[in-house]
Amino acid sequence: MTSHPRALSASIDPVRLDRLAEVAVKVGLQLQPGQDLVMTAPVAALPLVRRIVEHAYKAGAGLVTPFLSDEEVTLARFRHGREESFDRAAGWLYEGMGKAFSANAARLAIAGDNPMLLAGEDSAKVSRANKANSMAYQPALEKIAGFDINWNIVSYPNPSWAKVMFPDDEEDVAVAKLAEAIFAASRVNTDDPVTAWAEHNAALRTRTVWLNGKAFAALRFTGPGTDLTVGLADGHEWHGGASTAKNGITCNPNIPTEEVFTTPHALRVDGHVGSTKPLSYQGTLIDEISVRFEAGRIVEAKASKGLNVLEKVLDTDEGARRLGEVALVPHSSPISQSGLLFFNTLFDENAASHIALGQCYSKCFRNGATMTPDEIAAAGGNKSFIHIDWMIGSGAIDVDGVHADGTAEPVMRKGEWV
Amino acid sequence: MTSHPRALSASIDPVRLDRLAEVAVKVGLQLQPGQDLVMTAPVAALPLVRRIVEHAYKAGAGLVTPFLSDEEVTLARFRHGREESFDRAAGWLYEGMGKAFSANAARLAIAGDNPMLLAGEDSAKVSRANKANSMAYQPALEKIAGFDINWNIVSYPNPSWAKVMFPDDEEDVAVAKLAEAIFAASRVNTDDPVTAWAEHNAALRTRTVWLNGKAFAALRFTGPGTDLTVGLADGHEWHGGASTAKNGITCNPNIPTEEVFTTPHALRVDGHVGSTKPLSYQGTLIDEISVRFEAGRIVEAKASKGLNVLEKVLDTDEGARRLGEVALVPHSSPISQSGLLFFNTLFDENAASHIALGQCYSKCFRNGATMTPDEIAAAGGNKSFIHIDWMIGSGAIDVDGVHADGTAEPVMRKGEWV
Ligand SMILES: [Zn+2]
Ligand SMILES: [Zn+2]
Ligand SMILES: [Zn+2]
Ligand SMILES: [Zn+2]
Repeated sequence: MTSHPRALSASIDPVRLDRLAEVAVKVGLQLQPGQDLVMTAPVAALPLVRRIVEHAYKAGAGLVTPFLSDEEVTLARFRHGREESFDRAAGWLYEGMGKAFSANAARLAIAGDNPMLLAGEDSAKVSRANKANSMAYQPALEKIAGFDINWNIVSYPNPSWAKVMFPDDEEDVAVAKLAEAIFAASRVNTDDPVTAWAEHNAALRTRTVWLNGKAFAALRFTGPGTDLTVGLADGHEWHGGASTAKNGITCNPNIPTEEVFTTPHALRVDGHVGSTKPLSYQGTLIDEISVRFEAGRIVEAKASKGLNVLEKVLDTDEGARRLGEVALVPHSSPISQSGLLFFNTLFDENAASHIALGQCYSKCFRNGATMTPDEIAAAGGNKSFIHIDWMIGSGAIDVDGVHADGTAEPVMRKGEWV
Repeated sequence: MTSHPRALSASIDPVRLDRLAEVAVKVGLQLQPGQDLVMTAPVAALPLVRRIVEHAYKAGAGLVTPFLSDEEVTLARFRHGREESFDRAAGWLYEGMGKAFSANAARLAIAGDNPMLLAGEDSAKVSRANKANSMAYQPALEKIAGFDINWNIVSYPNPSWAKVMFPDDEEDVAVAKLAEAIFAASRVNTDDPVTAWAEHNAALRTRTVWLNGKAFAALRFTGPGTDLTVGLADGHEWHGGASTAKNGITCNPNIPTEEVFTTPHALRVDGHVGSTKPLSYQGTLIDEISVRFEAGRIVEAKASKGLNVLEKVLDTDEGARRLGEVALVPHSSPISQSGLLFFNTLFDENAASHIALGQCYSKCFRNGATMTPDEIAAAGGNKSFIHIDWMIGSGAIDVDGVHADGTAEPVMRKGEWV
């Protein structure tokens, strides 16, 4: 639970940690000379924060402002905070961040918090605090979600996260294993990771160009326990890898990333589908999800574990029962092959083809940058306070592209691109 | 240079660290139920941050928002930042803090940064960055300096600070020594530090009540190398120890504190005075200062070390050559008796009677809360961008109170209250 950078540096190779920082700045953000940078990170990630700050200034950053969070500080609130305080958030800070983004500051988040941190806390307080934070952060988040600015998420092998993934190992061993998994997935196990990312982006681009050329009306997923037709939104656009923000900067928001993804049609999803990996949601593991869609809406949901949490999620708002994303990831992707459950969407969504309940991405429309919310909704874009990815791909799943005239052609066979 | 809380906890007694946190919340801030708290701290002070956050929530805090700074992040800016960036500051963040203070958030700062951190950096960049930060922070700082809200500074034995004070000791030994000095000066070496502070505040109050009753026109300091008459501002008021902010909360802004202090008259200081301790200013030690005042203005300045820095300070603005504070501290105060130079004003100004160049405190006027800046200036209050305390007291200094009619009576003899 304690930041301990000196001793842990023994478990974390400093050369690849520095490469990860370089990739975050040069590939993840493509930080521009004079551009400010707002960072958030768990305090345990300080060694990576320091490397990123140095690379950012060397790349010509204006001001770099890191905010360090601490798990014990977070826990103290839930354990000792007064009842009335859980509907409040530091609005003045989120508002300020929004101003920084409006002035074209880039945004970098280091992921690595203990995914089970709040598992033992009062879930009513946790969800009230989350809601208050979401509402206060909304205006700033819109500039990120709307891709006004270049942004990036990268991960650090925080000991508390490593211990969740490798509970039977000593902390140093767990950290070393997680560090290896992060370095591999983030493609820094090479002398020239910037070139490795250029090649990976080109490969993903080949897929999105092909899918955008096909302009399928729907995708059909078939396999054991699954026969799901996911209608795609009118005017949808596939994205993956590097992407250009509205400020003109081409960045890689997610490191790692293996997916190509687009917006489904909120009213045109039918059939049944089962999850192929457990879903870690705010400290609860939801396992063996199985749902049935009618006209885009989940009308039946089962899970072998965490069903009550899943039902609560589905009841968040009307859009929580509909899809906001469909994504294709080959079963041979390095994260899938690692066989690890990371308890972290950044990694787990890149282990398998997936769908997401809730909010869609406006950028996944051909004219997304200029469409109004009403136009997005009319084209089939879903709207919700949540966006939760869950895995439906595996080595046993086939995917077909369905044309408007009903004809189909293979997209994936046994989890791999045809 | 690295946060290392686990190993250092061996050098820092956790019981007294927890008492220090309790004193910061209950005495330093008198944090009120429902009141928010904005904190700043070096990341190395995380163990104290965590204790303070817990005490704050237990005292009924609304939201506690800590900002952790890191010395390596600061250095990276000066070493790798682009030339154009040194006149900029994170205005959006300071503006946000100002909003929080306007909404009655309390303010707590944990001191403990390495006082020599920037000693080796480009001094032009450092002063440009300081100026940009000061200007951006000005509106928020006014709410603290103007005492709109309850605030507090408390210290943590940061290893980098400890090594400056005890350069010949191993880091753990240096930290242990500094921790002992902080605990002693902060009066937490007792089972009931809150009562100890109540008694200390009462003792300081006896002094301020006596001095305010006397309403001296001037103080005269005499001793080896010193014969200085410091006229006091019209309507000046002595303060010391606990003090009531405009939001009605009585707090102890400085922990530790030994001084009683008031506002001198900017035009009525005459004679010569020598420093009795070295002054640590932004990484430079200015030693054996000796200055001559005429009609409130320093007309001659000498120093055996750091004279060029002192001259630069005096040239900051017109108010930098005049006094904004005079303070009395007995030679027997625990900080003085420790014989340590802390390189930190919070401690060093409480080791001896002192004067400060620059800005005065508006609260040190009987009607300070309602006086306009023009009225403060007309009463003799000084105005400047700086406020720099330096020590003129010792066991050899006598202080007399001079009445308007020219008669005098003893205030201190050989550094002690009469
Ligand atoms: Zn996805
Ligand atoms: Zn997603
Ligand atoms: Zn003072
Ligand atoms: Zn002062």
